[in-house]
Amino acid sequence: MDSLDKIKIDIYYCGMIQVEVVISPALLSLYEVKGKVVVVVDVLRATSTICTAIHEGAEAVIAVETIESAMDYRSGNYLLAAERNGYKVDGFDMGNSPFECQHGKVTNKTIVLTTTNGTKCIEAAVKAGANHVLAGSFLNLEATAQWLSQCTEPILILCAGWKDKVNLEDTLYAGALVAKLRQMAELSIDCDTALMAEQLYNQSQNNLIGVLKHSSHYKRLSHLSHEEDMIFCMQNSVFQEVVGLVENQMKKM
Amino acid sequence: MDSLDKIKIDIYYCGMIQVEVVISPALLSLYEVKGKVVVVVDVLRATSTICTAIHEGAEAVIAVETIESAMDYRSGNYLLAAERNGYKVDGFDMGNSPFECQHGKVTNKTIVLTTTNGTKCIEAAVKAGANHVLAGSFLNLEATAQWLSQCTEPILILCAGWKDKVNLEDTLYAGALVAKLRQMAELSIDCDTALMAEQLYNQSQNNLIGVLKHSSHYKRLSHLSHEEDMIFCMQNSVFQEVVGLVENQMKKM
Repeated sequence: MDSLDKIKIDIYYCGMIQVEVVISPALLSLYEVKGKVVVVVDVLRATSTICTAIHEGAEAVIAVETIESAMDYRSGNYLLAAERNGYKVDGFDMGNSPFECQHGKVTNKTIVLTTTNGTKCIEAAVKAGANHVLAGSFLNLEATAQWLSQCTEPILILCAGWKDKVNLEDTLYAGALVAKLRQMAELSIDCDTALMAEQLYNQSQNNLIGVLKHSSHYKRLSHLSHEEDMIFCMQNSVFQEVVGLVENQMKKM
Repeated sequence: MDSLDKIKIDIYYCGMIQVEVVISPALLSLYEVKGKVVVVVDVLRATSTICTAIHEGAEAVIAVETIESAMDYRSGNYLLAAERNGYKVDGFDMGNSPFECQHGKVTNKTIVLTTTNGTKCIEAAVKAGANHVLAGSFLNLEATAQWLSQCTEPILILCAGWKDKVNLEDTLYAGALVAKLRQMAELSIDCDTALMAEQLYNQSQNNLIGVLKHSSHYKRLSHLSHEEDMIFCMQNSVFQEVVGLVENQMKKM
C-alpha cells in the first residue's frame, strides 16, 4: 500500500475532506499535488469561458499554455481561441469571452484555448501530478462542489491570479467553494489561505459585484469594456455541468 | 529627474499614499521595491520580538538570515538569538520570544537574531533596494502608522508567512496597518491583497485571538506551549517606538 492509498483510507474512515487553497500559481511548488483533485480557477475569464463552452455544447476545450501551441492546431477542425492581456489575439477565431460561446457557435466543436493566466495553471496542475483537474467557476459552483463532496482525494483550489499576483475574484471563488463544500461535508482545513478565502466570501457574498469593483482586474477589464463579461461570470450556479480534464481535454465529467 | 523622483512628486502633489501588500516572500520579486518603505511583518514572532527588544532598551537588533551568520558574532559583545521551527537553537543565548527581552535582560545590548521566516525578509527587502525597512508588529501599530503617514515613499507591507506559505496573522497585521493608515491619510490602493487584508482585519478586529485559534501557526505554536507569546504579540499599540533599519541594524527610528 503506498502513501497515497493510506491517505485515501484515512480520509475515508474519518469522513473529512481535506481542502487547501493556493492563492497564486507562483506558490504551487509549496504544495503536494500528487493524488489530489486540483480545481483551477480563473473566474475572469478563462475557466468561466471553458465552463460556458461545455454548457453550450462544445465537445471539448483543449487548454494550451502558449500561442505557438495553439497555432499547431490550425490545420485541424478546431476553433482557435487566444487572449493576452485582456485582448483577443489577431488571427484567432475567438478571444476569451463567454459570450463568444453562445448562439450555437461552439456546439459540437472542439476549442483550443490559450489565455494570459488560466490555461497555464491547467498545464501546471497536470505536470505536478494531479489525479483530476477541474475548471472552477461561479457558473457551475454547486455542481462542482457536489462532485467534489463525493470524491475521496484531497482538494487543492488553484487560483490563477494575474501574472502570479493574487487577485480578489479567484480568491472569492475559492472561498465560495470552501463554503459550499462545508454545507455538504465535514472539512479538514489546515491552510490559512482557505480560511481567509472562506471568510472573505462569507462577508462579500451578497455584494460580489460591488466588492469586485474595487479590484485591480475589474478596473483592467472595465477599461477594455468587458464589464458585461464580469457580470455574466459572477452568476452563481446557473450551469449543471462539472467540467474537468478527460484525456487531456476539458470535457463534461 | 529619474522615475522615482517623478513618483515621489506625483504622490506629494496628489497627497495620497500608495500601499501594497505582499502576502508571501515568494511573491516579492513581482513587486517594485526600489524607493519604497518596506514594512516586514512576522507577528509570531520575529518582528514582535524585535520591537519588544527595542522597547525594553536594547541598543539594536541585527537580523541575519542564517545560523552560521549569527555565529560569526560570537566573539563580540552580543546577545545571540536563534530560532528554527519554533524552537530555540542549542548554544544560543536566546530564542525568539518577546518574554526573553524583559526584566532588563536586553537593556543596552545588541542582539543578533536569526529566525525561520522574519529575519530573511528583512535581508530580502534590503537586497531588493528598499529606501527604509521597518519591523511591523501589533505592539507598535499606531506609532508605525503615524510615521508612515508622514513619509512620501510608497509603502510595501511584506508578510513573512511560514516557509513561503501565506499565514493569517501576518495578513491580519497588514490589514490592520492599511486600516490604520486610512484613518490618517488618503490611500491609493491598486493591490487586491491590500484590499483583502483590510477587509479581513476589519471583520476580525474585535476577536483577533479567536480568529487566530483556527490558524495553522497558532496550532503549531500551541503545541510548543507558546500560547502566552501569541497573546502578548496580539496586543495593539502598547509601544510607542517605531523600529527600522539604521545602518543595517534594527533601531528606534
